[in-house]
Order: sequence, then C-alpha cells, then structure tokens
Amino acid sequence: MGRRDSEGEADARARACLTAVAPPGDPWLGAMLAEHGAARVWAELAAGAPPPPVPAGEDQEPPPEVADMLRRRWRTWSTAAGRVDPDGLLADSAAAGIRFVAPEDPEWPGRLDQLDLPGGRRSHGLWVRGRGDLRNLCLRSVAVVGARAATSYGTHVASTMAYDLAESAVVVVSGGAYGIDGAAHRAAAAAGSTVVVLACGLDVDYPRGHAGLFAEVARTGVLVSERPVGTAPRAPDFLVRNRLIAALTPGTVVVEAALRSGALNTASHAAELNRVLMAVPGPVTSALSAGCHLLLREWQAGCVTCAEDVVAQVGPLDAVPPGPGPLRVRADLDPDSARVLDAVPRTGAGPAVIAVASGVSLEVAMRSLGLLAAAGMVERCASGWRLPR
Amino acid sequence: MGRRDSEGEADARARACLTAVAPPGDPWLGAMLAEHGAARVWAELAAGAPPPPVPAGEDQEPPPEVADMLRRRWRTWSTAAGRVDPDGLLADSAAAGIRFVAPEDPEWPGRLDQLDLPGGRRSHGLWVRGRGDLRNLCLRSVAVVGARAATSYGTHVASTMAYDLAESAVVVVSGGAYGIDGAAHRAAAAAGSTVVVLACGLDVDYPRGHAGLFAEVARTGVLVSERPVGTAPRAPDFLVRNRLIAALTPGTVVVEAALRSGALNTASHAAELNRVLMAVPGPVTSALSAGCHLLLREWQAGCVTCAEDVVAQVGPLDAVPPGPGPLRVRADLDPDSARVLDAVPRTGAGPAVIAVASGVSLEVAMRSLGLLAAAGMVERCASGWRLPR
Repeated sequence: MGRRDSEGEADARARACLTAVAPPGDPWLGAMLAEHGAARVWAELAAGAPPPPVPAGEDQEPPPEVADMLRRRWRTWSTAAGRVDPDGLLADSAAAGIRFVAPEDPEWPGRLDQLDLPGGRRSHGLWVRGRGDLRNLCLRSVAVVGARAATSYGTHVASTMAYDLAESAVVVVSGGAYGIDGAAHRAAAAAGSTVVVLACGLDVDYPRGHAGLFAEVARTGVLVSERPVGTAPRAPDFLVRNRLIAALTPGTVVVEAALRSGALNTASHAAELNRVLMAVPGPVTSALSAGCHLLLREWQAGCVTCAEDVVAQVGPLDAVPPGPGPLRVRADLDPDSARVLDAVPRTGAGPAVIAVASGVSLEVAMRSLGLLAAAGMVERCASGWRLPR
Repeated sequence: MGRRDSEGEADARARACLTAVAPPGDPWLGAMLAEHGAARVWAELAAGAPPPPVPAGEDQEPPPEVADMLRRRWRTWSTAAGRVDPDGLLADSAAAGIRFVAPEDPEWPGRLDQLDLPGGRRSHGLWVRGRGDLRNLCLRSVAVVGARAATSYGTHVASTMAYDLAESAVVVVSGGAYGIDGAAHRAAAAAGSTVVVLACGLDVDYPRGHAGLFAEVARTGVLVSERPVGTAPRAPDFLVRNRLIAALTPGTVVVEAALRSGALNTASHAAELNRVLMAVPGPVTSALSAGCHLLLREWQAGCVTCAEDVVAQVGPLDAVPPGPGPLRVRADLDPDSARVLDAVPRTGAGPAVIAVASGVSLEVAMRSLGLLAAAGMVERCASGWRLPR
C-alpha cells in the first residue's frame, strides 16, 4: 500500500491503537487529532496524562457539564489504552490478513475526507481485509443497501442490479448483513468485486452465516471496518457504520426498506453528504418498500429499476474524486507503480499486457493501475488503460 | 341543468349537431366557432355553403395544400350534415337519457376551458348521461387511469385507492375500459360517485362487458363523451378522449402502464395542461409498471401509494376552478337552486337539512349545492354547506 515515512508510520500506528479505545467518528477526538497529531494524542492517552486542549470554537470554552463529560470520556479511553498492546494489535491483525489504512496512506479513499462536515463524524482510520485496493474499488462504486428481512422480490432485484453493476465494472458497496446486503455482495462478487463495510472487527464474521461470503469477497474485493480485530458488533455501531457506506461511494441505492430502518439511516447520510440517492420502487402493498416510496414521494431519491438507471443517475464514475490525493507526482510512486506507469502506452493496453511489460504480477498491475488512475496519471480507454492525453 | 335563453339554445343545438359531423377537438372548427358562433357555422354547413373565414394567424393565409385539405374537410362535414336530423338526434339522445352540455351551460366543467391552448384541442360540447352533475362532480375529482391488461396487483391498488378517494368525497374520473379503469370506477361507485369518459356514443356501452357498470355509474355519477348517440368507438378517438380525462380533473394518477400505452398518453396530456401528475410504483420486474417508473425516473410524476398521498399531492380540492363560471349572480339561478340557496344558513347545515328547508328532494339539493359551490355562492364547512363569510 505504498510506503510511509517514519512520521506517517507513527501516525498510522497511533490511529490503529486509537480504534481500540475510542468509538469511530468521535468529533472531539477528531479535533484533537487535527490539532496535535495522532502520535501525541495516543502517547498522552497511554501515559494517563490529561487531554490535550483543542482550539475553542465559536462558543469559546465548553460549559462545565460538557467539560466534565469530556474528562470522563478521556479517562475511559485512557484506562482502555493501558490495556492495548500496540505490537500485539498489529501482529494479530496481520495474522488475520487485516491491514490498517490511515488518511495519509495511498489506499485511503479520498471521498472520506468529505465526512469532515459539521456532524459528519470523520473517520480516524480504517481496518481493511482482502486483496482489493480500497481506494481503487471505491472510485467506480455504488452502495446497494436494504432490509435484512428482505422479500424474495427485494433480494431478486438486489442480485440482478448488483450483478449488472459489477459487469459494468461498478463496485458494489454494502453492509454485509443478511437480506439485501448479502444478495448484493454475493451477486457482485460473482461478476466482479465488492466492498463489505462492517461494524465489527474484520475477524469476527458477523453475521456468522456470512463467513463464507466474506472469505469469497476478500479474494478480489475488500472488507472494511473502523473497529479493530476481535470487536463484537454493538447496535449503535451499525448507525455509525452506515455513514461510512454512504461516504465511500458517489451514490446509494435503497432496494427495500421499512419506514424505520437502517437503510433509511444510510439514505439520510447519503443525502447529507450530497451523494446521489436512489430508491427501487416495489409493490405499494409491501411494508418493505414503504421506505423506498417515502424517499420517492418526498423527491429525496431518484427512481431506479435496473443497473442502467443507476449508472445514468450517478453520472460519470471514472472521474477522480475531489480533494488532494496522496499520489500526485512520479516521485511519490512506490517502485511497482513506477514500473507499471512506465509500461502504460499512450495508445492504451490491457492490464495483462501492462503486467508483462512491467515485470509485475497481474494482481500488482491491477492495484497499481487503480492507484495511478486515482492520481490522474493513467486513464481508462477502450483497450484498457492509457496515459492521459 | 339551468335554463338557456333562445340564443344559448340555438348555440347548444348547433354544437350538438356538429358533434355528429366533425371530430372532437378539431382546432379549425374551434376557430370558426369562436369567430362566427356555432349556429351560423352549422347553418352554413347544413346549407352546403363554403366555410366561413377564420381570422388569419401569424402565418397569414394558409399555404395552398392546407387550404385545399380544409376545403375537402369542410365538404366531408357538409355531406354528413345533410344526413343529420337535429330533432331526431336530440330526441334519440333524450330517449337514451343523454343530455347535451354546451360551454355556456351551468353544467360545463370550467377546467375544460384550459384546453384552449395551442394544440389543446378544446372541446366543442359534451354528451352527458347520468344523474350526477358533471361540473359539480369534477370540482373535487382525480383521474385514475391505467392499463387494460392490468395485473391483479394493479387492479387491487386501483380499487383500494379509488374506494378511499370516493370515501374522502373525491370523484374518480377514468376511461371506462377493462383493467385499471374498470376497477377504479367500480370501487368508486361503491363508495361515492364516478365519471366515465368514453370515446363512443353513450348508448353504445363499449366495452360490452361494462354495460352493467355504466348503468350503475349513471345512478349517482355521469358518463360523458364528445361523440353523439350511436357512434361506435374508433382507435384514434381514444387518444382524443384521453385529453378530456386529463382536462376534467386537477390531477391524474397512473396506476399501471406499459412503456407505450394510452395511460402514458393521458399522462402527457395532464403534464401539458399543468395538472398534477402522479404514478403508482410497482415491482420493477413488471412490464406493466414500467410506464409508471419511467414517469417517476424522469421526475415527471410524483410517487403515490394510497389515496392519502394523492390528496396530499393534488392539494386543496375545494377551490373553485379558475375562469369565469356561468353562474355568478342570483338572478342567473334556476328556481330550485335559488330556493336551496335561501335555505343555506350562515352557520352551515347538512344537505338533508337544506333539502327539507328548501322543499326539494335530497338529490336536487345536492346538485344545486354543487352548482352554487361552483359559482362561489356556498362553501363547504365541517357541518356541510354554509354561505361564504
């Protein structure tokens, strides 16, 4: 995943440890990280020191009851930090095939930086499992979400849509649950790659019945979570996880959703983040389509009936997401990517040809091409990949 | 239906005869009627005279081939006019329980004047059958239309929606066909009144299997057509009829429609006339919901799942439609309506109380109240009807 300098390494290591003590997206922690850097925050936490100050907002100092709550929160984290063995955490993760991706790493999905909104609960770091490259996979992606207790209609539509999206080289992102999520992942994995966003540790395989599916996903796609190895899922974490699904993709499709449901929660995150929100209609007699019809009735979501509709509504998916990407100049490239770049002809070639020409495996070539595309250094064309004109 | 003066009587009689020779909505005929009045146009046609001139538009004189086409059209009408027996036409109609309503008559639905758009094909007169008052019924109305070859899902939704609309005192307007139309009419008739808009003569009962339904509709609602008694339906007439369905109501709901269908034709008329267009979602796997999903996907129609959604989207239905109504002053009232008006208290009363107080039957009271409401002389209130404040 590219190389980190020693400062980047210390930052990533501290962020990895922080995922074991603080909940994902905590805004106060985010403010501290932005002000002092993860390495210092972690060091003070592990040393039992008081919380480093964050710049006062418009309201200046927080009122006493808030300050007191924050002090107690810090003490809880500090106690937990005392029990964290950083080397052990990273070793256990590596043993389970899980890597840590920090915001400065090349694999970090640029779209997550758009979580830096008021109340957006930005992500402090991601655990990733699987052979795919998270940033590459998310470039051309769509979230397909819906009810766990889906109907056969819903799972049929989710499967067909996800398969057709994957065949169009669009990566399907979802939450790994039973029902719509599972149907979407399974069909997408059959035709391409998929991204599973979990609320638990990536070795936990929740739900249990999806352990086989998750192993299959890991072969070409990725599983991603803000929680470290061994973390069991808890109810509130699913809602925090949903913001990640919406943020990773340019558009979210709700296939089936009851009126109060996690899928509508994901939809509201997508709307807040200015993502393209889409809903699949269904029988008005089905309670599991009521959430979709609510979104359509209130003109919050566009109506989509198939993968083609989804691609038409999301718009061009090949564009590099906005924001400063980590790879911009040739000097930043890791050796493999530099060799792959040298092998990409102006007129375009397929990944296999490029792999042979650059002397790397097809897998490495694919990953490097994704990174290079994210950096705008290569672009897709009819025959595969070419240098930009 | 109110009284006509002798000029109004001659105009209505001429228009009735014209329905037997010229197709509904002919724009050239409309221009002649506006310029010379129906009585003169009919007299010249019946006498075999040349067509009276219409004011030249922006293009001044029509090009020779158009002028020639119009001359031939006039000759066809003139030949047909020679075979029309005006007294016989009106007598046959009356014998079949069919009356003629001209644009100056109190029963004329004011919304039809909005057909006077470029290409709107204004109506030159309506044949009406049934005890209801067309204008009164259309005041609080919604069109519910859809496929003839409807699915059981579609007929179920159409029935439920139409029944609930009728229970909310909203009149359901539709085209009398098998499938969605029939289901909507039948359910609406069970709970209230309905308006059937036909493309054939009102004694023809097309489709045949709906003869019983049409007789039932006539007991409280109306059937309406621009074609005189004895006219068999022809394919192009259904499309011309569809504009009438859209124009009579403030909103049109498409329950089920294939991608190329009469229901989408009605929908496009509704959109052109700035009516509220609504579509019912259904399974994306159903070809008969594809037309509805097309309207939703292109943001042409609002998504509705039940009668409540329809009422919310159409907005206030009690408002008197725009345009100069024929009844504005007390002196214009027929004797029954004048007595009913005298019996309406400022504080409001139900129709039965008003009927007893005015010494007319409940049926006459209801009809008069509708006309008075259309003229803005009474208004609805919690207890029934009252004088405006």
